[in-house]
Amino acid sequence: MQNTGLQALIVPSSDCHFSEYVADRYKCREYLSGFSGSTGTLVITINEAALWTDSRYFLQAEQQLQGSGILLMRDGLESTPSLSGWLADRLPAGSRIGLDGDLFSVESIAALQSGMNGLEIVPQKDFMTEIWPQRPPLSSAKVFFLSDEITGLSSGKKLCKVRQALQIRQGDVYLLSVLDQIAWLFNLRGTDIDYNMVAFCYAAVFHDRALLFIDPQKLTRTEIEDLSHNDIEVIPYAGFEPYLERLAACRILYNPAQFSYNHYAKLMELGCSLVRERDKFGIVNSLKGIKNDTEIEGFRKAMIEDGIALTRFYRWLEGLLKRGAVSSEKQISDMLHHFRSQSELFIRESFESIVGFRQNGAIVHYAVTDQSSITVDGSGFLLIDSGAHYRCGTTDITRTVHLGTPSETEKIDFTLVLAGHIDLASARFPAGTCGTQLDILARRPLLDRGWNYLHGTGHGVGHCLNVHEGPFAVRKDYNPVALQPGMVLSNEPGIYRPGRWGIRTENMMRVKEGGETEFGKILEFETLSLCFIDTRSICPELLTEKQKEFLNHYHSEVYRKLSPHLLPEEALYLAEKCRAI
Amino acid sequence: MQNTGLQALIVPSSDCHFSEYVADRYKCREYLSGFSGSTGTLVITINEAALWTDSRYFLQAEQQLQGSGILLMRDGLESTPSLSGWLADRLPAGSRIGLDGDLFSVESIAALQSGMNGLEIVPQKDFMTEIWPQRPPLSSAKVFFLSDEITGLSSGKKLCKVRQALQIRQGDVYLLSVLDQIAWLFNLRGTDIDYNMVAFCYAAVFHDRALLFIDPQKLTRTEIEDLSHNDIEVIPYAGFEPYLERLAACRILYNPAQFSYNHYAKLMELGCSLVRERDKFGIVNSLKGIKNDTEIEGFRKAMIEDGIALTRFYRWLEGLLKRGAVSSEKQISDMLHHFRSQSELFIRESFESIVGFRQNGAIVHYAVTDQSSITVDGSGFLLIDSGAHYRCGTTDITRTVHLGTPSETEKIDFTLVLAGHIDLASARFPAGTCGTQLDILARRPLLDRGWNYLHGTGHGVGHCLNVHEGPFAVRKDYNPVALQPGMVLSNEPGIYRPGRWGIRTENMMRVKEGGETEFGKILEFETLSLCFIDTRSICPELLTEKQKEFLNHYHSEVYRKLSPHLLPEEALYLAEKCRAI
Repeated sequence: MQNTGLQALIVPSSDCHFSEYVADRYKCREYLSGFSGSTGTLVITINEAALWTDSRYFLQAEQQLQGSGILLMRDGLESTPSLSGWLADRLPAGSRIGLDGDLFSVESIAALQSGMNGLEIVPQKDFMTEIWPQRPPLSSAKVFFLSDEITGLSSGKKLCKVRQALQIRQGDVYLLSVLDQIAWLFNLRGTDIDYNMVAFCYAAVFHDRALLFIDPQKLTRTEIEDLSHNDIEVIPYAGFEPYLERLAACRILYNPAQFSYNHYAKLMELGCSLVRERDKFGIVNSLKGIKNDTEIEGFRKAMIEDGIALTRFYRWLEGLLKRGAVSSEKQISDMLHHFRSQSELFIRESFESIVGFRQNGAIVHYAVTDQSSITVDGSGFLLIDSGAHYRCGTTDITRTVHLGTPSETEKIDFTLVLAGHIDLASARFPAGTCGTQLDILARRPLLDRGWNYLHGTGHGVGHCLNVHEGPFAVRKDYNPVALQPGMVLSNEPGIYRPGRWGIRTENMMRVKEGGETEFGKILEFETLSLCFIDTRSICPELLTEKQKEFLNHYHSEVYRKLSPHLLPEEALYLAEKCRAI
Repeated sequence: MQNTGLQALIVPSSDCHFSEYVADRYKCREYLSGFSGSTGTLVITINEAALWTDSRYFLQAEQQLQGSGILLMRDGLESTPSLSGWLADRLPAGSRIGLDGDLFSVESIAALQSGMNGLEIVPQKDFMTEIWPQRPPLSSAKVFFLSDEITGLSSGKKLCKVRQALQIRQGDVYLLSVLDQIAWLFNLRGTDIDYNMVAFCYAAVFHDRALLFIDPQKLTRTEIEDLSHNDIEVIPYAGFEPYLERLAACRILYNPAQFSYNHYAKLMELGCSLVRERDKFGIVNSLKGIKNDTEIEGFRKAMIEDGIALTRFYRWLEGLLKRGAVSSEKQISDMLHHFRSQSELFIRESFESIVGFRQNGAIVHYAVTDQSSITVDGSGFLLIDSGAHYRCGTTDITRTVHLGTPSETEKIDFTLVLAGHIDLASARFPAGTCGTQLDILARRPLLDRGWNYLHGTGHGVGHCLNVHEGPFAVRKDYNPVALQPGMVLSNEPGIYRPGRWGIRTENMMRVKEGGETEFGKILEFETLSLCFIDTRSICPELLTEKQKEFLNHYHSEVYRKLSPHLLPEEALYLAEKCRAI
């Protein structure tokens, strides 16, 4: 900093591809601060350092920052200064603030700069490698390609659609940086980032060919040849930046929210003509968000695999507790992995399992560690939010099961969450409706009593890709993307009673057509996930007849679809769990 | 046009104050085209003319434009060209398009220009007076002032709040053009525009004084003196534009959506420093939208006046039909006026009553004329949407009453609309929720069957001002303004069966605090309107117990609050109507 004339540095949680989860190599903020939460921004001045993070991580950050001298800035509290305000209070006007311009999009730099009254953002090249001895390298794991039988659409056809967008904006080349977008486009999957199915790469789509910038060691010679036959050339990952120089005469299509500032600046320097793509969310994101019939079939198959594993898992757990033995959150997490990994189609977990017993269930983003793991016995609610990537699709499911005898208070909480879940799952809505409009349906039974959950209700789920994807969402925050047939999303209301219990009931659903009337096209959801819901924790009198019918029908489907794959004693166990209320 | 080198003219529906309803003087588009609908834009080229309007007016516009040579452009249909596209197809690049820059806001001109590929918008001064012989003059009706006992807040205190906004932006003067904003700010009411309680005026708020530009003939000498004692100077309406020249050295705060382009251009020419106000919706709009306790009490009083009138009206109508006589939509509209005008507090209707019998009820914005008025007999649904300004507040209410014996199909429609109405009225929601999130609650019972209504669910209602006001709304369209305690709005789901019947059930409600829990502040609604709902048209089995409870409680309140003001035979009639189901 002192050599470069910078008065402060900003270190975010991101990588060069704007990934939600990042590989170890990009855990720069964690390396510098010791704080390991998924979200947080570190700011360093000559004399001070401060870290902004949100309420999920207040406790964890407090513990991890202890003794570091780094100030904890609790985002969202009124008393917390904004990052730019804090800097402006400390630094003279005109001060230069550095950050790695690879880790920020064009749009995010602009937003940051517009908030910086009198301070100047000066994007830098990567400065971490220099100061981080033994910085972890990028993974060199092999990638693999999904056949058209799995994806339902060849990479060639996907490229055609992207080229149409290129044509409309009269661009010569479209540059892509976001990993799950590139993976989708080339039907490529990797394991470079934990829990995700992506590999580090960039892509350039021309009208007649495409370039895939990826470590060639990750591909077999045959795969490289196959790509080449489809006019896709493989170029080493590190070759992306140097390659930009060859685009000097091109009209380049890009998305300012998904393209690094440093690449943008380089292209501008080269005198390129840069055009924003028309689709604000990214054409690939928008295409990827709508699953085709083959992908939906794959999801269904994945749900059966997952449902079998979960049935066996809960049967194992109940057997254990019935014998008077106890388990631990850690063991449960491991056993869950064990049952899932029995499937031939299993690849890896789609996120770190949340196994929260009793009071730990109330910690929304709880991750069990050897230290935190508590004994699980035959009492209280056990919340498990988990999922997996199978070769045909991805799952994300939460069940809360009472391991003892639920109290009346516990039952009321459980039933209201379920009522909201069912109300959203059975909603019918006009074409053009966005998630913002539907969010209240899942909250209403809780809100009637003044209760709520402070997270979103639903997110898009990638097809054997990232478990969180856009461009739509079901949240109170405004998201203008209308729900469309083929979109696959989660439905996960909950309630959290700190120190007591947490309840969440989550299924995945797809959006489908629900007929047309004189008033227009109607859409509806179809629930995809297949696992019983703990009927012993329900107060039937708090459900409407329609809600009960939905639940009973759901349970009959769960049994019908899973039982043929189960051993007789397992099917018997499931039948009992799926009994109508 | 030919003298000024313009290749086209655009004539909108607006006045210089961006009013929703306009005075006759500003019905320029109607004068030129013959089309009298409330919304429509006329475009005139040297050889052609075309009029854009929305689906509500397709039929009416077709009839009224017949033989005029003006092309009808049906807005919203895919085959309809956009105004700018149509012009671009006809005119050479670089063509100049004229419009009266008084009738367009700074923001709307910018939006219009940004859509005009290669054509140039050239704002003009008013050109209608020249070509419109006997153009109606502005009204010279007297204004009146509401006492602090009615408004709950003196003009002085309101000015203080506006001055705070002026301070924050370091402005010298805040210029206001929108009539209901100025009326609110000075506690002034007028009748210059039908159905509204406003007078033509402008205002300038300085830190130490304010200027009110209004025809001094509309005020008494005492009123002018009283204003002057409060540092408010009255200047003739026509003096506003000349006065702008005296602001040359000032820093002027304005709202680009609520300030005319011509005034803006003039100030720019003078070299003024123009600053946009921080509140996108206008500080006065935002303050005005939240009613104080006195205003709410006034609304309550107005509801009693309205409820008495409606009870008497329906009793009269039923008596008439019972005697075998018939009525007409026109007579009903007149009688409704008669019963309302019996109240000492009655000022005028707050909008043109919609009285739609049977198939006419399906026309959402139906306005009865001598020609369209049909015979009302003892059969079918009668939809009446009406309201009034009383000295203490404004009403807007819709009731649909079956005058014969409702069929099963009619009852289903009626009950589902009512269920949605009740679901919204009884909603509880976290502070920070906006109308976009709640809209689905009123539609859900209909949507379950694939039905819907194609209008918004709720709008703000002014306090003895305009019956439609912002800045919030309950609609599917995104409106970021959170509902806040004190906001007063309508709740009006409906269903329309063309050629058969229309049903709408509308009450006004206020937003109020609904307690605080560990999850934050909860808000809820309180229904304000007081008039029975036609229980004979309800299928009780389609309502939940909670919905029935709500209805029965509502009816007991209607009876409790209205009966003390009724004659014994009227109270008896109301008691029968308010019987629990």
